Amino acid sequence: MEDLIHSESIDSDWMMKITVSREKLVENVNYVLKAVSSRTTIPILTGIKLVASKEGIELTGSDSDVSIQSFIPTEENDIENASIHIPGSIVLQARFFADIVKKLPGDSVDIEVDSRLMTRITSGSSEFNLNGLDAEEYPHLPTIWEEHSFSIRTDILKHLIRQTVFAVSTSETRPVLTGVNWSIQNGKLKCVATDSHRLAMRTIDIETDEQLDKSNVIIPGKSLNDLAKIFDDTGSEWVQIIITDNQILFKANHLQFYSRLLEGNYPNTDGLIPQETKTEVTLGTKSFLQAIDRASLLAREEKNNVVKLKTLDGQSLEILSQSTEIGRVHENVDAQEISGEEVRISFSAKYMMDALRQIDASDVKISFTGAMRPFLIRPVEEQDLLMLILPVRTN
Amino acid sequence: MEDLIHSESIDSDWMMKITVSREKLVENVNYVLKAVSSRTTIPILTGIKLVASKEGIELTGSDSDVSIQSFIPTEENDIENASIHIPGSIVLQARFFADIVKKLPGDSVDIEVDSRLMTRITSGSSEFNLNGLDAEEYPHLPTIWEEHSFSIRTDILKHLIRQTVFAVSTSETRPVLTGVNWSIQNGKLKCVATDSHRLAMRTIDIETDEQLDKSNVIIPGKSLNDLAKIFDDTGSEWVQIIITDNQILFKANHLQFYSRLLEGNYPNTDGLIPQETKTEVTLGTKSFLQAIDRASLLAREEKNNVVKLKTLDGQSLEILSQSTEIGRVHENVDAQEISGEEVRISFSAKYMMDALRQIDASDVKISFTGAMRPFLIRPVEEQDLLMLILPVRTN
Repeated sequence: MEDLIHSESIDSDWMMKITVSREKLVENVNYVLKAVSSRTTIPILTGIKLVASKEGIELTGSDSDVSIQSFIPTEENDIENASIHIPGSIVLQARFFADIVKKLPGDSVDIEVDSRLMTRITSGSSEFNLNGLDAEEYPHLPTIWEEHSFSIRTDILKHLIRQTVFAVSTSETRPVLTGVNWSIQNGKLKCVATDSHRLAMRTIDIETDEQLDKSNVIIPGKSLNDLAKIFDDTGSEWVQIIITDNQILFKANHLQFYSRLLEGNYPNTDGLIPQETKTEVTLGTKSFLQAIDRASLLAREEKNNVVKLKTLDGQSLEILSQSTEIGRVHENVDAQEISGEEVRISFSAKYMMDALRQIDASDVKISFTGAMRPFLIRPVEEQDLLMLILPVRTN
Repeated sequence: MEDLIHSESIDSDWMMKITVSREKLVENVNYVLKAVSSRTTIPILTGIKLVASKEGIELTGSDSDVSIQSFIPTEENDIENASIHIPGSIVLQARFFADIVKKLPGDSVDIEVDSRLMTRITSGSSEFNLNGLDAEEYPHLPTIWEEHSFSIRTDILKHLIRQTVFAVSTSETRPVLTGVNWSIQNGKLKCVATDSHRLAMRTIDIETDEQLDKSNVIIPGKSLNDLAKIFDDTGSEWVQIIITDNQILFKANHLQFYSRLLEGNYPNTDGLIPQETKTEVTLGTKSFLQAIDRASLLAREEKNNVVKLKTLDGQSLEILSQSTEIGRVHENVDAQEISGEEVRISFSAKYMMDALRQIDASDVKISFTGAMRPFLIRPVEEQDLLMLILPVRTN
């Protein structure tokens, strides 16, 4: 080993010198860390970029598909978060830097970069010297003009994501289906996801000053999952959303989330949704979900995880499933109302559970149009959420 | 698919018929489930055995190394846990049975076994029919004569296990080292574990009516981990421990835990423990652990996870570590007392953290006898716990 002894750097040409609240640094490093992938082909993207200016410290993490930028203002609500002694910039290994700041002993952290990019991080009686990388080498984030934008509150945005993203395809056979299709018209945002076996659709009103009209915006499912995770850690606030030809930018307080959009044309899904109904069943969301869950205990042993549903005379549903080796299960679920023809239909228990878990309403309405036609699941008395599942042919 | 329709079994020769509290059943199935392995070579051991008698329901799970038996008394503290309509026995697939009882909708569960071993499990509006296996085919548990036994409270037993089992070897090169050596003499139980690079030793007083003297009891580390997990779910109570030539049995209220013992002779470890001390350091457990933890952030990048420790003039320790690629770290830890020669020593950060994490005392004493000799870590003013670590040679 070389000299391990703690030594003052001989070089006094500091490239950057800052003091920052450890708590603020940990919080913001964790935001941008969500964009950093260890499997990137661009080595510098395994790092986090720090840029210190008089106004504060900007942190950036990116895997080139998703980029997250976070800002620690030197002062906020009369509390001092950071002191910038010498403005400058550096890129530090993301995983190490995140682990280090999380475990440092003091309330504040000093970060000093010398002309060889050696970065000294001190806090309490702890001192780290990390080899930094030149921030000039870090790729630039896409430039986005704020021409057209709209706003959503973070809690509604998270909900919207959760209720649709589960239905995206995990297969790369048709790449557009790995994303969620957003379209905006008449002050409404419609989000659709489908893997061609099931579909989720959610519509919300948006806040915008202008006449926005966009139809083929396809956001990667992975980006939306990352975005939802970040807002778990923040309070409820407004997010400004700006869409360009190949990028979408979510701007919240001190936080910017960029994602590339998927190329290609999203299929028209309106034609998939049956307009007529032959049987309509209204029942409690939770008791139905639990019955399907139990039936699927045996169904998941068979490869397709299929359960059978049958309307019974009167007011109940029968759910059946079996595995030759293990045995069979029979569930009886009380319905509030069953109208129309008798139904016998088979479907994936997993798809049904996925759909029901995203519905917060206590009751759902299921609309069937025959054993081989897609059927719809909707919260009772809500028109802005719709789930569709294709049945499975069984003997 | 065959007939899925819910049908009363035509056969009315019931082999077993019971009603049991779902909560009690879930609790007890979870105990015995811990012994069931899906990788067993004996197919029937993927099941849980149920034996219903007038007194209650006995459940058994086993992977042939560890066996757990649990008992639900029909009545307990004037509360009725179960009704035995027809006594009998059955073996049911463990994973399915555990999942099913956990998710059943009612407060009680009916279990009925017909002469073809088809087992109907009903609760609320849910009905499962599982293919059972003949309980006669289930291997017998070892017969253990209660000749010599002693008792420990579960909280002390758990503590004892935690403080030693972490140091067992994970390599099968010397199988006896994958176990913890228990020896009993003069009303004391001594537990030793070592992987030949570090050692943990804990002694406690035991309750026994007789003159017990046992020295070569080697309990598999995995069994002890399983045992500790079970007692996480129970309150504090007395455990009776019975040791035979090749088995150990832990008997708690309604719960019996059997483990086979490892064959072979455990090495004599007394000679490993240095009797003289050249340097003695007393310092806070938590601040030392945190400093080692930070130093190991870079050390773990190198293959051996080594940190260097140096006593400084006065009252502090220096901890150093470096990774050529990432950088270096320097920690300064205040000591309460340092006496004797100056020390410069290198060791595995992981071993040091493992040892410190098992010490509850706020301060520890570290005794060195030179850079290449094993050193000891002990809680201050406690003689019944000792940790030993072999240093690492560095350049």
